[in-house]
Amino acid sequence: MKITLADETVKEFDGAMTVSEIAKSIAISLGKQTIAAKINDNILIPASSVVKKDCRIEFITVKNKLEKQIAAYTAGLLTHDALRLNFDLSAVLVEAKEDGSFYILIDTGRSFNKDDLEKIEKVANEKTKTLKIVNTEKAFSDSEFAMNIFNRYVQLNPEYTSLVKKINHLALEAFYVSDFPDRPFLPSFAFYEDCSKVKKIKLTAASTFQFEEGGKTYQQIRGVAASNAEYVDEYLRQEEERKKSDHRYIGKQLEIFTLDPLIGRGLPIWLPNGTIVKDEIKKYLKEKEWEYDFIQIQTPVIGTVDLYKTSGHWDHYREDMFAPMELPQEEVVLKPMSCPHHIAVYNFKPRSYRELPLRLAEHALQYRYESSGSLTGLERVRAMELTDSHIFCATSQIKDEFKRAFKLIQEVLDTFHISIDYLSLSVRDPKDKEKYFDDDKMWNNAEAQLQEVLDELGVDYIRMPGEAAFYGPKLDIQAKTVLGHEITVSTLQLDFLLPMKFDLTFVDKNGATLRPIMIHRGLIGTYERFISVLLEQTGGVLPLWLAPKQVEIIPVNVEEHTGYCEEIKAVFKKNMIRSSIDERDERLNYKIREAQVNKVPYTLVIGNDERNNKSVTFRPYGLPDQVTMSLDEFLTKLKAEISERK
Amino acid sequence: MKITLADETVKEFDGAMTVSEIAKSIAISLGKQTIAAKINDNILIPASSVVKKDCRIEFITVKNKLEKQIAAYTAGLLTHDALRLNFDLSAVLVEAKEDGSFYILIDTGRSFNKDDLEKIEKVANEKTKTLKIVNTEKAFSDSEFAMNIFNRYVQLNPEYTSLVKKINHLALEAFYVSDFPDRPFLPSFAFYEDCSKVKKIKLTAASTFQFEEGGKTYQQIRGVAASNAEYVDEYLRQEEERKKSDHRYIGKQLEIFTLDPLIGRGLPIWLPNGTIVKDEIKKYLKEKEWEYDFIQIQTPVIGTVDLYKTSGHWDHYREDMFAPMELPQEEVVLKPMSCPHHIAVYNFKPRSYRELPLRLAEHALQYRYESSGSLTGLERVRAMELTDSHIFCATSQIKDEFKRAFKLIQEVLDTFHISIDYLSLSVRDPKDKEKYFDDDKMWNNAEAQLQEVLDELGVDYIRMPGEAAFYGPKLDIQAKTVLGHEITVSTLQLDFLLPMKFDLTFVDKNGATLRPIMIHRGLIGTYERFISVLLEQTGGVLPLWLAPKQVEIIPVNVEEHTGYCEEIKAVFKKNMIRSSIDERDERLNYKIREAQVNKVPYTLVIGNDERNNKSVTFRPYGLPDQVTMSLDEFLTKLKAEISERK
Repeated sequence: MKITLADETVKEFDGAMTVSEIAKSIAISLGKQTIAAKINDNILIPASSVVKKDCRIEFITVKNKLEKQIAAYTAGLLTHDALRLNFDLSAVLVEAKEDGSFYILIDTGRSFNKDDLEKIEKVANEKTKTLKIVNTEKAFSDSEFAMNIFNRYVQLNPEYTSLVKKINHLALEAFYVSDFPDRPFLPSFAFYEDCSKVKKIKLTAASTFQFEEGGKTYQQIRGVAASNAEYVDEYLRQEEERKKSDHRYIGKQLEIFTLDPLIGRGLPIWLPNGTIVKDEIKKYLKEKEWEYDFIQIQTPVIGTVDLYKTSGHWDHYREDMFAPMELPQEEVVLKPMSCPHHIAVYNFKPRSYRELPLRLAEHALQYRYESSGSLTGLERVRAMELTDSHIFCATSQIKDEFKRAFKLIQEVLDTFHISIDYLSLSVRDPKDKEKYFDDDKMWNNAEAQLQEVLDELGVDYIRMPGEAAFYGPKLDIQAKTVLGHEITVSTLQLDFLLPMKFDLTFVDKNGATLRPIMIHRGLIGTYERFISVLLEQTGGVLPLWLAPKQVEIIPVNVEEHTGYCEEIKAVFKKNMIRSSIDERDERLNYKIREAQVNKVPYTLVIGNDERNNKSVTFRPYGLPDQVTMSLDEFLTKLKAEISERK
Repeated sequence: MKITLADETVKEFDGAMTVSEIAKSIAISLGKQTIAAKINDNILIPASSVVKKDCRIEFITVKNKLEKQIAAYTAGLLTHDALRLNFDLSAVLVEAKEDGSFYILIDTGRSFNKDDLEKIEKVANEKTKTLKIVNTEKAFSDSEFAMNIFNRYVQLNPEYTSLVKKINHLALEAFYVSDFPDRPFLPSFAFYEDCSKVKKIKLTAASTFQFEEGGKTYQQIRGVAASNAEYVDEYLRQEEERKKSDHRYIGKQLEIFTLDPLIGRGLPIWLPNGTIVKDEIKKYLKEKEWEYDFIQIQTPVIGTVDLYKTSGHWDHYREDMFAPMELPQEEVVLKPMSCPHHIAVYNFKPRSYRELPLRLAEHALQYRYESSGSLTGLERVRAMELTDSHIFCATSQIKDEFKRAFKLIQEVLDTFHISIDYLSLSVRDPKDKEKYFDDDKMWNNAEAQLQEVLDELGVDYIRMPGEAAFYGPKLDIQAKTVLGHEITVSTLQLDFLLPMKFDLTFVDKNGATLRPIMIHRGLIGTYERFISVLLEQTGGVLPLWLAPKQVEIIPVNVEEHTGYCEEIKAVFKKNMIRSSIDERDERLNYKIREAQVNKVPYTLVIGNDERNNKSVTFRPYGLPDQVTMSLDEFLTKLKAEISERK
């Protein structure tokens, strides 16, 4: 048996040996320190595992960063054992990550509440002090557990069956896999035989889990553990931080959106606050589109299957579409894209060169079938509203239209403090006559125009030959949020093909019939995705013009000062400023603190002075300032700030 | 055989006699003047028809208003004969109306163009001079023609088969039915035997026709005829008028909307102009809703079938819904109503009395499956946007909420010059314990509150006992357009049931858990229906704030004055005023006339004086006035007029 070590030396051994024995044979100290081994750069196994075949071995000691994964896997096994003792249930899978987090899967219809988790966690922590796990090899059976490992790691390839081993000791079962084929991840099946090495186990959550869409449902219990208790505390603190900057957390806290399984999966409901944010953004975008001469239209949310057969979506995009609906005379489907609908608007009457470029814009609902496992808050949904546009123009107008759309995007992103990072210009591979719509003249012209535009704009871009779409070159605009997230905001995309498929024409100055070009343009992508980014980027502290509640009015004394507060509110309402009065029977400081928690841009505290002088005293969000001015002045200040959209 | 006459006298005759013979037996002059008879108040038969059984007879002379129907039916038969000669095709049904219009149905896949119609019309008119129709009885066969008569008139009831007679002369076939059961309409099978009585036949249109959704398709040729040629001319003139005031005509002329079978039936596409009208109305309505403290939300266009099972729509409303879509984990359906979605918003968190009344508003897309035959422009569609709201409130708040909603509706309708005609208050029948949700206390309270509201508002209403919905009393607001059309604008509807079905609750001041009431409110119904009324009511002459194009700018000399026109347009654009410059190479008067045809509120004519003085000369739509003022003054005037929404 030939063993290749990390330094590429090869050692030869006679017959099967444990990892510990191999380590010891190299150096006694190494043998003592080795807690596990990474086999073939691929999988962690415990030091007591038996190695039978040629392989690469990297010895893992307590100082290795993979030690956390080993401690976490041990904690997973202990959790499994605690579960067995408390609920007479077994884990069918234990998995651990390098950051010390782990989960176990349980094949049961029973769900676990907070009390259950506390009970299991307590027993698991107690067990660390007493339990030892002995690594005993055992023949692998085709139990359901094995199938799960296979679903997850081996993609049900039967030739790997014999490579999976099962370890069994007392009531505690653990599993490992050796001789694994190359895979991009590193599953852990290594554990501390001496469980007292694990100093703290914390169970964080329980939920349902499916390996694949529509598959069998398991219960999943998640946790974190380490051989260093402080690490666990730090991990939990950071997780709390991450959760608070997640748009799902902020969206819930600010009541932006909600999801309801009875309405349907991946279909966000915009709550009153979210509707305000969305509508304010929409109003702004439509103002900018008016400025840039885009024309709004509104097209149906469905189309016939025949429409999408004509456009080609039915053949190439069907699996991302919702199931069609059978009507007596036609088959219709929720639209995945609005292109064919905008074409119907272009085509509803004969067009002349005078009407071009025709910039049709629609903030349009569209529907994509995403697997339920991939659905994430507002970030990945099945129903979305795209800030869509299709520009119909003559070939000679492409350059100007790209520039115009680019400037519009740049201005809009500036308003939201999102900067364009770089552009990627996807062009064809001119040698590839199969992959690209064959019209060299058209391609050369279009690509040259795009390149010129970019040079004239003086923006950085990456040219990507062979990456164009079948029907034309495209420009992807990559932006960076203040948090450093890279997002694709817009794809400006030239399309020669749809105008052909739908036989679009226009009559030019000389009476000749020509075919227009289409440019697909997304302004800020979908509202759903964009607002999820916006919430994460701002931590929910929205600028005044977007804030659902712009002013919180707090009477110092509810009985005495609410009257004047009502006056203030009425003035605000008339001026379309969103405010409310906190009349609850709570302490003043509590109310002020809560307005801060709710991220209200301005908090007014109204007492005798304010009432007598028709003034207001306000605190801007997050600042210690406390300013008094006349109500009129404050109103002017608010209106200016709102209209500037700072 | 006993014959009852119009004056209720009864005459007895021996055996079968023609109508003429019976008339003659009463008075010789009546026999001469009688051209047909109305049998049993139900059907017109020719004077030469044989009457065999007891019946009521009303003799029809040329002075009777039904004479037009007889002339038209004759023309239908002549058209059938002309069709036979020209195209070797037969009509399977001829029908005529009291206004002189008629149609024939042909069982053919061939369609008829304008030239075809002219050819048929020419021959039919020639035949009036030469043809005589002889009324010859003939046994009825079970041919397809018979089935069509039956589909239409006898609802396929086999016991009537023997009552239908067929008349045959030369190549011309005519048909009549005697002894007909009572029916609300009066089919005509009476004709002039002497066709020269018909002085003018005009064929107006050809199209396809189906007796029922998805049924067999026939070709239909429509026309008008009379024994008085001037009547035909007047009819055509009036029809042209009617057509021009039809929203489909105006909608096409002003490019408000279009329909495209490839997108789907009954799914209007809002063109740029229509989108402006719709968006301006929406902006206005949302401003009013803000004023009246309604809160906007936005909910998905689909819901699960389970949702609609819970709400009861699936059981009671399913046939009006689109077909559901099968997804791997759920079955979803386009929403026919938003009530359950608004309930999801109410229910997404526990509610307190402080939050009530909660007035959730949504201008919401909804989908109803209407048969394709009933689809009419924007008036009857499958996809519609309802100005919807659901108010969640305590029982004690019902009265105030009804008043508030009523005032809002009244103000909004005033703006559109639509006045509330009357209200119908539908209440339960207290004795009927089956039809109504059984809670007398609730009903008495609710009905008393509604009645008080109406008394306090001092509006006329009609109380309709037994007309309430199962779940609560309702108030239908009937309005009258300036054209006198009655429309149902809003149904304010109390609902005790949905709050129960979805277990809605709130916590009151004392900590008790109570159930809220729901009020369903439609503000102006759907945009589709409302805009169809608006177009017909205004004849397309929309007020400035709604006009898609508000100002047409015409340079006296395109070369010299377009520069200043551009300046004007830029000022307008900055002020969100919609204008365009007519730079075409056409005569000035032609351009001015066209701006009038397109119903543009203001037409500017810009020449040297205007350019030199930075002024404008404008003509308001439909007035001879021509006013000159500075551009600034004109801008101020426009902005004031727009913001007043006059």
